[in-house]
Amino acid sequence: MRQDDGQGAGAILGDFVAAATWLDVAAQSHEAKRSILNFFATALGSAYDPAVTSALRTLSPFSGAATSAIIGRPERFDALVAAFINAISANLLDFDDTHLETIIHPTAPVAAPVLALAQARGFSGRDVLMAFILGVEVECRIGNAVSPAHYARGWHITSTCGVFGAAAACAKLLGLSADGIKNAIGIAASQSAGIVENLPTAAKNVSVGNAARNGLFAALLAAEGYSASARAIEGPLGWARAMGDEPDLGRLVGGLGQSWEIAKNTYKPYPAGIVFHAVIDACFKLRARLDQRLDEIVSVTVQGSALALARGDRPVRNERDARVSIHHCVACGLLLGAAGVPEFSAAMVFQPDVVALRQKVRAQLDASLRDGAARVNILLASGDILSETVMDARGSLADPLSDLDIEAKLHDCSRLSGTAWNTNVIIEEVWRLDKVADISRLMSPA
Amino acid sequence: MRQDDGQGAGAILGDFVAAATWLDVAAQSHEAKRSILNFFATALGSAYDPAVTSALRTLSPFSGAATSAIIGRPERFDALVAAFINAISANLLDFDDTHLETIIHPTAPVAAPVLALAQARGFSGRDVLMAFILGVEVECRIGNAVSPAHYARGWHITSTCGVFGAAAACAKLLGLSADGIKNAIGIAASQSAGIVENLPTAAKNVSVGNAARNGLFAALLAAEGYSASARAIEGPLGWARAMGDEPDLGRLVGGLGQSWEIAKNTYKPYPAGIVFHAVIDACFKLRARLDQRLDEIVSVTVQGSALALARGDRPVRNERDARVSIHHCVACGLLLGAAGVPEFSAAMVFQPDVVALRQKVRAQLDASLRDGAARVNILLASGDILSETVMDARGSLADPLSDLDIEAKLHDCSRLSGTAWNTNVIIEEVWRLDKVADISRLMSPA
Repeated sequence: MRQDDGQGAGAILGDFVAAATWLDVAAQSHEAKRSILNFFATALGSAYDPAVTSALRTLSPFSGAATSAIIGRPERFDALVAAFINAISANLLDFDDTHLETIIHPTAPVAAPVLALAQARGFSGRDVLMAFILGVEVECRIGNAVSPAHYARGWHITSTCGVFGAAAACAKLLGLSADGIKNAIGIAASQSAGIVENLPTAAKNVSVGNAARNGLFAALLAAEGYSASARAIEGPLGWARAMGDEPDLGRLVGGLGQSWEIAKNTYKPYPAGIVFHAVIDACFKLRARLDQRLDEIVSVTVQGSALALARGDRPVRNERDARVSIHHCVACGLLLGAAGVPEFSAAMVFQPDVVALRQKVRAQLDASLRDGAARVNILLASGDILSETVMDARGSLADPLSDLDIEAKLHDCSRLSGTAWNTNVIIEEVWRLDKVADISRLMSPA
Repeated sequence: MRQDDGQGAGAILGDFVAAATWLDVAAQSHEAKRSILNFFATALGSAYDPAVTSALRTLSPFSGAATSAIIGRPERFDALVAAFINAISANLLDFDDTHLETIIHPTAPVAAPVLALAQARGFSGRDVLMAFILGVEVECRIGNAVSPAHYARGWHITSTCGVFGAAAACAKLLGLSADGIKNAIGIAASQSAGIVENLPTAAKNVSVGNAARNGLFAALLAAEGYSASARAIEGPLGWARAMGDEPDLGRLVGGLGQSWEIAKNTYKPYPAGIVFHAVIDACFKLRARLDQRLDEIVSVTVQGSALALARGDRPVRNERDARVSIHHCVACGLLLGAAGVPEFSAAMVFQPDVVALRQKVRAQLDASLRDGAARVNILLASGDILSETVMDARGSLADPLSDLDIEAKLHDCSRLSGTAWNTNVIIEEVWRLDKVADISRLMSPA
């Protein structure tokens, strides 16, 4: 364990990231491509959301030369602005990827600045993949070192840890030395921010966008000689302890290069809270068994873990509530037979038959079910009970989305947003990302 | 107490800031001018520091239209970049002002964005003063509500609270409604960052610059309709508790408009840690009594509070250490007879006679002395002991710098940095700030 040598965690991570070559990361590149494809799906899907448009309008007087694309739109801005905006659109609906152990959405804060910088400077697809894989590694390891207390205390972990991943990835892309990468990571520690209290509001987007933007900024500053404490993460007055955590240094730097966090990434089939996906899957099965007898439903009981109930047993006042409502997930699965972006829109959420079905649902603790599993029981007017249990939801590590599923998600998201970007070109370019000399076609797929 | 009505702290602050008129703040305007003059002094002094130049070089490709001055230099950038850079230069040596109760340096994060925005949009000097006074009020009240545990836990309070002051001030300057100001403050909560562990490094500048830049950004986003939680500061998963504090709501919103935090601002005569200023003052008195008999000094004993010893009883490895060294402060007072920026430069810090005198100094706890007081005892070869005690250092609330002292500080700082800005024009424009229709002459005093 090198941390026993008296080296700071930032230096150990810096050494690792600096030394890594394509051969070290090539085995992770397919999962990285899946993550990036899923990133394009959700970024395209929200490209014209009002929250994205307002942020663009705010920043448009504050951009330098327009080097980098806004995904799904015709505008270009400088790399810092593009990193900010693209991270926001990718994460807006929390429909992006999930590193299950930390609940970090790993790709948005890392891919957004890497792509913006690579487009501005002409880096290759292979450079992009390598930087991205290493950035996710740093981001999720730091998250592992402080989970689960960090999020529970009120820190939006995608934002607070994303900035480290962005910094490490961009520093790698810029070709900084081990010391420069250490400094970029340390500078990120002074920019790490974002609170859970603001998650139901547009302010959430600001911390996610900043994670991307400020990670790139940290790398650019380190390239100009800016330094940081060698123990910015784990020092006595450093990031982890200020944030209330006793960092687990073993999780932070143990086994670097032997296991990879990107390999544990997952992709959502539904734009709902991930712990409710099993509810939707169980309801799809029940819908097939019900065979149109929806009128005969007397009540629906959903059994789940304490976490699922704490997060999802709530009234639905708006479409944001619907995305984390057990009741609405039941309505999607049984009544609507689908659980895509349209089924969580305000129009569908307040459709009378949907409201009526939600009112028949109640949630019940079953401590024997782990987080992410669910059992759904339907009582029919006949007195019959239909029941389905789903232990591993679609999209989980045990039942991952296929490459074609992710392609289909990208087509769906793109169609809904009305973007003019060519989805087939994006798909083609992402799958051959390790072969392209630059990413210009990917970032302007007309 | 309005917080008992169930209104969030952000809404109470937003109502207060939105409703405030010039008549409400006019009595504070002289102290505000003193703060701003002191801000120009330290910003001019560090205008050409390598840390400022590197940050400028990093950001120069990422600026929109050049509307706003970099203080002390010929360059102009957009208001976000100028806010970032000017806050850095003003705070670089910690020679800026001090709100003693929190140890916040209040002006750098608030004045930098207010001036940058006012120059870009043509706001009046009175608008600037009003926004600045209200921003400092919000910044220091939030600091009061979490002090002293917040800093002790590792949060660089100038950065973490500065962003709120910048947001409130810029939102006021933009003429936002009470709700808009509340949102700007709430968005700031998702951007509050900066750790003590990084203070001895350039990464410190990043969190100070971001406080200024991101506070302005929060106000611009709020103007475009971005919202935040009504309880972003004090909610169960909000800023204060995530940062480890139980916020004192009475300190946060009690007596708004009756007492003013700007009235408690202080200005440093020496670019050293403020708790060591009494050591310097005592040594100046002793130097006069010694009358050249420096060779006869056998030893120097400095008595101070536990805080003074914890912060200042340390080896001097570089000029940054010197600024927080009891030993070096003694050398300045007794040997050099001055304690300005030159006496804390590397050249003077490692002068052999200075090193030799530092080695004769030892620090000793005197629990009867409060923080900021000091007693210095000199043992001479003759066996005589000379002793001086200073309870209120020069620059403290009990012995404040005069207006002329601050003007002299501005001239000194300006001379050392070699800036071409005309200090007489700055002084003239700051004293008549409530009378000028715009700040263009102040921001380009050729």
